Amino acid sequence: MTSSASRPENAPPAPPAPSARRRPGGRTARIRTQVLDAVLGELGEHGYDGLTMEAVAARAGVHRATVYRRWGDVGGLLADVLDAVGDDAWQPPDTGSLRGDLARLNHEIQDALTARPPVAAALIAASFRSEQAALAQRRLWEDRYARCEIVVGRAVRRGELPPHTDARRLLIAATAPIYHQLVLLRTPPEPDLPDQAAATAALAASAGAFTGPPPTGDG
Amino acid sequence: MTSSASRPENAPPAPPAPSARRRPGGRTARIRTQVLDAVLGELGEHGYDGLTMEAVAARAGVHRATVYRRWGDVGGLLADVLDAVGDDAWQPPDTGSLRGDLARLNHEIQDALTARPPVAAALIAASFRSEQAALAQRRLWEDRYARCEIVVGRAVRRGELPPHTDARRLLIAATAPIYHQLVLLRTPPEPDLPDQAAATAALAASAGAFTGPPPTGDG
Repeated sequence: MTSSASRPENAPPAPPAPSARRRPGGRTARIRTQVLDAVLGELGEHGYDGLTMEAVAARAGVHRATVYRRWGDVGGLLADVLDAVGDDAWQPPDTGSLRGDLARLNHEIQDALTARPPVAAALIAASFRSEQAALAQRRLWEDRYARCEIVVGRAVRRGELPPHTDARRLLIAATAPIYHQLVLLRTPPEPDLPDQAAATAALAASAGAFTGPPPTGDG
Repeated sequence: MTSSASRPENAPPAPPAPSARRRPGGRTARIRTQVLDAVLGELGEHGYDGLTMEAVAARAGVHRATVYRRWGDVGGLLADVLDAVGDDAWQPPDTGSLRGDLARLNHEIQDALTARPPVAAALIAASFRSEQAALAQRRLWEDRYARCEIVVGRAVRRGELPPHTDARRLLIAATAPIYHQLVLLRTPPEPDLPDQAAATAALAASAGAFTGPPPTGDG
């Protein structure tokens, strides 16, 4: 689980942020890498309350004025971190079965949400503090769920699921319990919850629980 | 949906807070009612950022020193509001079927999370700012889920579910999608999601998805 291909749903990678890393071009890209690394570092160590423009500039070794000019405020920094996290080549698991894919996905999510330092959890918490971070977090999730729809398409093609299964609802049903327990209820991680939530959603899906009417103009 | 018996999972009632209302006793109880009302009012109008000891004292018409002495800080106020919300006679729906009970429960949750002013949503957001509020929110949810276990017990007795169904996991599976969409993904409410999430969980449960081994000493 160390390659970028297995990066979880909402987990920021270990610094440096991926898009900055992939475009090492010039000074601008290098500064972005340094600054976004510093944001992740500060956030992981001190959470949102320790995240100041000053601390980020100092940690990055970048002039404060540059950080203010380019990112404006802490919300701007968080949004750019989240956008950088999403700017990667992540693809959902392909294990050969719907249940297997969902279970692997849930394990990735659980690993990200319980990682130390708690960067993914801190980014989610930050989305309750900053409107810009909230919008960026929403974009990231939207993109991750969209990428995961292929998991459902493959299961339909394998005959595991009825056609016209609503991919998004199935994915939400499979993954929501992990987020609910770890982010909202704040209960300790249950090692078998990822598998169980995946199995539950797969079972319901194969029984037709997410089968809506065929999309108009398509069936 | 206006009586206290239909109060949602995590929704604070309209002010005044219920426990203060139910024990109108003396000056102390009256002040608590006034102050907790003021917290809900400030939170609903301005969110966490507008919530200060000064604003609460002014809105409540209570001396600032009293508010500081009794609640200490904003975290103390939030924790007391959440404890007051939970100190009620709320019982889960009893519609005669598992699917019906879960659907009603999900509608209550969706109504609470989309209510205006957004008090329940603001309390959840506050739990990412204040450790005291986080602990109180966790206690409230723990208590609500515990009360809801009777829904599963009744379904088992009616023969709708296999014995030894894990009530908590079933309840989490049924309700998590509502929280996930509205609180984390921040997507607009989908009118049929409460029914659909309930139906999905009920279907999976009746197929045995939440059947663990029998509790030791019980089977």
